[in-house]
Amino acid sequence: MNKKAIGMFDSGIGGLTVYRAIKEKIPRERIIYLGDTARLPYGSKSAETIIRFSEENARFLLEKNIKIIVVACNSSSAHALPRLQDLFSIPIVGVIEAGAEAAAKCAKKRIGVIGTAATIRSRAYENAILEKKGTLEILSRDCPLLVPLVEEGWVEHRITRLVVEEYLLPLKDQGIDTLVLGCTHYPVLKNVIAQVLGPQIQLIDSAMTTADRVLRMLRNMGWLNPADEIADDEFHVTDFPERFRKVGEIFLGRKIENVEVAGPLGRI
Amino acid sequence: MNKKAIGMFDSGIGGLTVYRAIKEKIPRERIIYLGDTARLPYGSKSAETIIRFSEENARFLLEKNIKIIVVACNSSSAHALPRLQDLFSIPIVGVIEAGAEAAAKCAKKRIGVIGTAATIRSRAYENAILEKKGTLEILSRDCPLLVPLVEEGWVEHRITRLVVEEYLLPLKDQGIDTLVLGCTHYPVLKNVIAQVLGPQIQLIDSAMTTADRVLRMLRNMGWLNPADEIADDEFHVTDFPERFRKVGEIFLGRKIENVEVAGPLGRI
Repeated sequence: MNKKAIGMFDSGIGGLTVYRAIKEKIPRERIIYLGDTARLPYGSKSAETIIRFSEENARFLLEKNIKIIVVACNSSSAHALPRLQDLFSIPIVGVIEAGAEAAAKCAKKRIGVIGTAATIRSRAYENAILEKKGTLEILSRDCPLLVPLVEEGWVEHRITRLVVEEYLLPLKDQGIDTLVLGCTHYPVLKNVIAQVLGPQIQLIDSAMTTADRVLRMLRNMGWLNPADEIADDEFHVTDFPERFRKVGEIFLGRKIENVEVAGPLGRI
Repeated sequence: MNKKAIGMFDSGIGGLTVYRAIKEKIPRERIIYLGDTARLPYGSKSAETIIRFSEENARFLLEKNIKIIVVACNSSSAHALPRLQDLFSIPIVGVIEAGAEAAAKCAKKRIGVIGTAATIRSRAYENAILEKKGTLEILSRDCPLLVPLVEEGWVEHRITRLVVEEYLLPLKDQGIDTLVLGCTHYPVLKNVIAQVLGPQIQLIDSAMTTADRVLRMLRNMGWLNPADEIADDEFHVTDFPERFRKVGEIFLGRKIENVEVAGPLGRI
């Protein structure tokens, strides 16, 4: 089991923040990544469609030699995780549980949660946080423009700062002490978000917390890879590898070379 | 033939500007609209994927009682129109030809073309305009943030104005006298675009020019509907009718009541 890879899927490219966090925490693990770039984004779509797409992604990964699946997409984790865990016997980890745990631990009174429309609508963070600490107050807000701003490469742009202010100042005014970055694109905007909110508000980056969780799970199961040398990671996309390579640089700070096109994954 | 409906598809919701323009020009025609909301947007995807999705959309419409197909999506018109016209014997109209014709007629020297990344990459407007008037100069620019801004409902928002300035002032500075709104979402932003560019620059709205073209074609073929009373239009989506109804209001100024969910359209 130890030498098998970590399988990971995302609606597209944002999951690379989770990829990066896991590579930093557990550099000896090999990762097989699938980005569903033909059907992205998931954040504006319905629960049923997100579940169907997620199941197809998981089936693609299960044909590879993997030991665990990381659902590196908040919208997918929010809606599809229970269904995937019912269907498949391999361990499947989403990004929400770890983020919610860290938020509940860190928050004093009032937590802000931001994410895509699908993630916020699901109340997945809200439920997971309240399960751990029922006395917290939670304010949720969907921020649909942040993903396209990151993909446009406007990470340090003055307009991005204005959009972040528009979305987050009302949460700040309502006195949140902690903010959950509930979408895998948002860690790319961590600097501007921190500038807008100031040092008093703690940011929870669910890419980092998920990497911690994966490390803990693999260690507990005795499944960590002991090898010094590992094979190259694999990147698969359902469409347009050129764009994945290019936009991927915003997330990893380097070009991604070996991107392969996965065939059509299912019906629709 | 006269009593058959006009079939129309779009990647999602933007095609409603074309729907609206046709309803204004030819109110007696019945329209059957398909929005591929499960797989939107098309503008960030590859030519191959846009062609495959478009073909599946056309096949869905061909099972209805229609006399013509309007491809009410610029990305799809730019990449898939020749393929659809090869495959199917029914008349198929895109949005680019009519816009290019109007632009070539109206422009003096220099035309700006804005659209999604896929539309701009295709050079479809450029080629169509130069075919009509080879002496024109064409400056193209993709504007990926305008679609999400419209769908967020920020039509009159100060941030939208700043984004429009960021994208369009360089074209203004380079002396364009005409601008083609090469995406079906952009007519919704016509006011702010006109404010940023000033009255000297003529805007070409391809929803309006396409409606003119459809009217002309139906009249020439003797296919206009002579009836005074027509059945209700139909709206089909591949996902999430609630969101279509809600965001549709931004485009039509009214709620859309009868939205039905089409089944999965094909593989992927």
